[in-house]
Amino acid sequence: MSDIVVTLPDGSELSLSAGSTVEDAAYEIGPGLGKDTVAGVVDGDLVDKETELEDGSELVIVTDGSDEYLDVLRHSAAHVFAQALLRLRPEAKLTIGPWTDEGFYYDVTNVDLDESDLREIEEEMADIVAEDYDIERKTMSREEAFDYYENNRFKQDILDTEAADEEEISFYEQGEFEDLCKGPHVESTGEIGAFKLLNISSAYWRGDESNETLTRVYGTAFADEKELEQFVERREEAAERDHRKLGRELDLFSIDEVTGPGLPLYHPNGKRVLDELADFAKGLNLDAGYDPVETPHLFRTELWKKSGHYENYVDDMFLLDVNDEEYGLKPMNCPGHATIFDQKSWSYRDLPVRYFEDGKVYRKEQRGELSGLSRVWSFTIDDGHLFVRPDQIEEEINLIIDNILTVFETFDLDADVALATRPEKSVGSDEIWEKAETQLKAVLDDGDIDYHLEEGDGAFYGPKIDFGFEDALGRSWDGPTVQLDFNMPERFDLTYTGEDNEDHRPVMIHRALYGSYERFLMVLIEHFNGKFPLWLAPEQVRVLPISDDNLDYAEEVAEELREEGLRVGVENRSWTIGRKIQDTHTDRVPYMIIIGDNEQEAGTVSVRDRKEREENDVDRDAFRAHLREERDDKRVEPDFLD
Amino acid sequence: MSDIVVTLPDGSELSLSAGSTVEDAAYEIGPGLGKDTVAGVVDGDLVDKETELEDGSELVIVTDGSDEYLDVLRHSAAHVFAQALLRLRPEAKLTIGPWTDEGFYYDVTNVDLDESDLREIEEEMADIVAEDYDIERKTMSREEAFDYYENNRFKQDILDTEAADEEEISFYEQGEFEDLCKGPHVESTGEIGAFKLLNISSAYWRGDESNETLTRVYGTAFADEKELEQFVERREEAAERDHRKLGRELDLFSIDEVTGPGLPLYHPNGKRVLDELADFAKGLNLDAGYDPVETPHLFRTELWKKSGHYENYVDDMFLLDVNDEEYGLKPMNCPGHATIFDQKSWSYRDLPVRYFEDGKVYRKEQRGELSGLSRVWSFTIDDGHLFVRPDQIEEEINLIIDNILTVFETFDLDADVALATRPEKSVGSDEIWEKAETQLKAVLDDGDIDYHLEEGDGAFYGPKIDFGFEDALGRSWDGPTVQLDFNMPERFDLTYTGEDNEDHRPVMIHRALYGSYERFLMVLIEHFNGKFPLWLAPEQVRVLPISDDNLDYAEEVAEELREEGLRVGVENRSWTIGRKIQDTHTDRVPYMIIIGDNEQEAGTVSVRDRKEREENDVDRDAFRAHLREERDDKRVEPDFLD
Repeated sequence: MSDIVVTLPDGSELSLSAGSTVEDAAYEIGPGLGKDTVAGVVDGDLVDKETELEDGSELVIVTDGSDEYLDVLRHSAAHVFAQALLRLRPEAKLTIGPWTDEGFYYDVTNVDLDESDLREIEEEMADIVAEDYDIERKTMSREEAFDYYENNRFKQDILDTEAADEEEISFYEQGEFEDLCKGPHVESTGEIGAFKLLNISSAYWRGDESNETLTRVYGTAFADEKELEQFVERREEAAERDHRKLGRELDLFSIDEVTGPGLPLYHPNGKRVLDELADFAKGLNLDAGYDPVETPHLFRTELWKKSGHYENYVDDMFLLDVNDEEYGLKPMNCPGHATIFDQKSWSYRDLPVRYFEDGKVYRKEQRGELSGLSRVWSFTIDDGHLFVRPDQIEEEINLIIDNILTVFETFDLDADVALATRPEKSVGSDEIWEKAETQLKAVLDDGDIDYHLEEGDGAFYGPKIDFGFEDALGRSWDGPTVQLDFNMPERFDLTYTGEDNEDHRPVMIHRALYGSYERFLMVLIEHFNGKFPLWLAPEQVRVLPISDDNLDYAEEVAEELREEGLRVGVENRSWTIGRKIQDTHTDRVPYMIIIGDNEQEAGTVSVRDRKEREENDVDRDAFRAHLREERDDKRVEPDFLD
Repeated sequence: MSDIVVTLPDGSELSLSAGSTVEDAAYEIGPGLGKDTVAGVVDGDLVDKETELEDGSELVIVTDGSDEYLDVLRHSAAHVFAQALLRLRPEAKLTIGPWTDEGFYYDVTNVDLDESDLREIEEEMADIVAEDYDIERKTMSREEAFDYYENNRFKQDILDTEAADEEEISFYEQGEFEDLCKGPHVESTGEIGAFKLLNISSAYWRGDESNETLTRVYGTAFADEKELEQFVERREEAAERDHRKLGRELDLFSIDEVTGPGLPLYHPNGKRVLDELADFAKGLNLDAGYDPVETPHLFRTELWKKSGHYENYVDDMFLLDVNDEEYGLKPMNCPGHATIFDQKSWSYRDLPVRYFEDGKVYRKEQRGELSGLSRVWSFTIDDGHLFVRPDQIEEEINLIIDNILTVFETFDLDADVALATRPEKSVGSDEIWEKAETQLKAVLDDGDIDYHLEEGDGAFYGPKIDFGFEDALGRSWDGPTVQLDFNMPERFDLTYTGEDNEDHRPVMIHRALYGSYERFLMVLIEHFNGKFPLWLAPEQVRVLPISDDNLDYAEEVAEELREEGLRVGVENRSWTIGRKIQDTHTDRVPYMIIIGDNEQEAGTVSVRDRKEREENDVDRDAFRAHLREERDDKRVEPDFLD
């Protein structure tokens, strides 16, 4: 009788008797797979292998070879942490302990922990792993669960919310420890090959600043020790390169409690980098036929109601009252650009119209979420909006992607590309969506660009291509984007007159080459470890006189280079030359010029680069010509001394 | 007994018996002057000649040769208007009718007026002037005055406020007309040599949007007809050049009701001009050793409390609440820059430190005050702040003024310069003020710069030099400024380490080369009548093919010029060449290139300029080289065809 059918990743369908679990389905496919099954992904959610399947579900079987296996393993490691903590500090109260991209965390309370406690807990965790407890799912009734947590209002809160619809409450048990949990988990604690507790921070219950502050313990886990070692190494390297640390050390920017959280102040060094980035993007934009525009930061919210953003975006907007009317700081630039387009009448011959603006936008993130330049309240998008005829989409997308690839190449970054297609809730006809998706795919295929498909992940207003920046440490960050938009032209009733003399609706394309300057600056700081290419370096050359007697010649040499538009400092403090060199290395200046009596007499310079290579008796003209070339070619590494 | 002493403009003192009037004083100086006296200026206020003088006053006698005479005459013209209006529309109610820089206005109500009514009123005014009524001061008791205005709550309101302290209420009478008024006025209506009613607008009672709307009639008056004619001519010329009109016609910017009043949107043409202006200022700043910085638009108001702006500025600020804390949009950039300076420790060797930022600021003007780009809510200051040692002030001011004069020269504008000195309420020692004022004077004198002194008009925090832009029509607009500031370094506790190893307080200098981009763009649009110099022109060259057969060659010629970074359009519409030329003139494009079969065959171009000069058979290389030079030299007029 009533069998169910589930769809497997290769698109094939599998018929099962009603009530079958993930594990049953795996056995149905083959006994080997059944045996290896750790968990399943059902309709995108990672679930326990004992989860019952429903008719029409999409099913992925998770084994210890799957990408998702690490999530399961880390989830179990979080339980091992909790078990160890309760052995050592029975008074601690547990709240939630999920896996993350980097490992896991557990938020706990009623216990005093600092980082010096972590080694002791790790030792206890090692014992639990060695004891190799089976991890088994069990259930309680709601009543039993509430009784079990009579002294833990956080777990009770979870029972009231996430688990509110469930009659049978799912727990996982390992040895003396059990925890309210939906799973999935590995078979036994012994499967956790390698783990490490990383650090402690504070967190709000449910991320809400008005709730109680909890103690969050971060850890990670891997199947084997070698992977953990690599992770720890990468993490230390990342900490070395942390843009917040380098931002201070290189005097790039600051975020000040008095001026406001999430609102970066750019110091001269940071602003110089931003200006170079802006000039580069502006050059690409002007060459590609974009027109510059400028819009204010303050708008009547009428505009956001017209664009449809208000409905979905109002909670993230900074709102204010002016003369009893509601205004808001712009969270995006598109409605302003659509307004400018709408001020004129256009013919089919005028299209495409391409606007660009480095527009600073304001989005109200939770204060607890703010972090350096990666999560901020104010950030500048290198925003472009195109108004095109439907027949121009493919060519325009091609041109945009050319420019995006130029950005990746220029900054020596790898691209992680995703094509996101039509979601269930969307506007626009089947025909136009299909055509648009086909066009986007064609552009990616013709350009030989590796990408993965994110089915149903497009915006409701159109499909899009998202580019991630993959940095030197292999991490991926949100970057450029190209989005088709069939919606905003409708809402603003934008038109152009066609060759047929009738009104037609243009298609809008949103695009950014960097995404946000803030995030891109963060990526570059960490990617280059603060060692910016010559063209970006806030200080490109520093001249170091060996003694004060060489100061005049040093100034002369500096002035000569400044005439080339180079940013050149002169060290005028009475330090030893060794200290001057060390300080210049610390500041990551690409080149230093050392001036002693010999150089002064010969009219030459000694050149030393950031890679600690050195050459004496260098002809000034030759070095100057090289610097100009290295800068103008935007070369990534100083190569005069190659 | 108790005599009084008043001070005359030449600094001399005049003793008078108590109760003497302005006129008495004039007679005391000489009977000729006594006879010619029209009014007086007592402690800066223009008053009736019958005003009693008080001991210690500063007195200026006003005759028909004085600058203030025109104000008096126009005040009387306003009364003549009111008299004429009441003769024609007895139901009209008068409110206030002051003189202005350009003439006078009278705000009236209870009457329907449009501009077609003005001629009739002017004729009646001409009769009143011809009838040459004596204008005489009379007084009423408060009670009589209230009775007189029993049907006019506006005049009663004035009696309750401005005239609240007076027992005897002053009226002026001419023929059958009388009006509550403090004067002064000319002797008789016949003295008004020439007058004209200009236009009608609406106004709020007391300028407050929550009050009743009144009808404002603008007029002007002069001593003779010739001056009036010149005024009317200048006014028509100004209307032709009005930046709001040209802003629309040249597609430079718009201000949109949905996006918000006072918040300009810059279209590509306007943004191109702004970008050129910004690049020019940036070049001057970088050459002068300024460092770029960037600060957000949103700040906690804590910052404004720290800087002291909150106290005086809060009503003009756009405020908002974020997580129960008060934030505001920045009305100025200085506190942000002081915060950046404060993030580092500085040695005397590091100073001067010079920051610049094109910072968009937000100030909440009354909606009724907003006008085009001249009064806005959002505007961008080309803001510079310097942190200098006291011994560096003079040299720095000199460098700033050099750059300011470069701006005046580059844009062919005259400078109207004022040195504003210590006001009564001020911070800082006598010694430092005196020294600072002496230094500012020395810079102006050494530079042979004409200026006038505005005694006591400095900021409370330091003396300043204000530069006005005098445009082609002789009007003066607020422009660059240089201000010394002894206050903000105190409030931010800014320090540097001196040669003596002690902490010292730097002096701050605020300066702008343009003032605000918005106002400067307005000045430039009107000064040049939209005919921007080549380097500023949004479209520098337009290529006009005579027929579609010439389109390819036109594109080739355009592309050649674009490679020089020139902004070149190609007219691709199927218009007659005559219409194409006319359209290009209307758009004020400096040069057009006309391409017909002859040019195409010969590989040459025909060049026509904005001044309607033309030359055929021009060598393309020669023209291109000229354009590059004319642009790079920032020449004001197209001169290829000179």
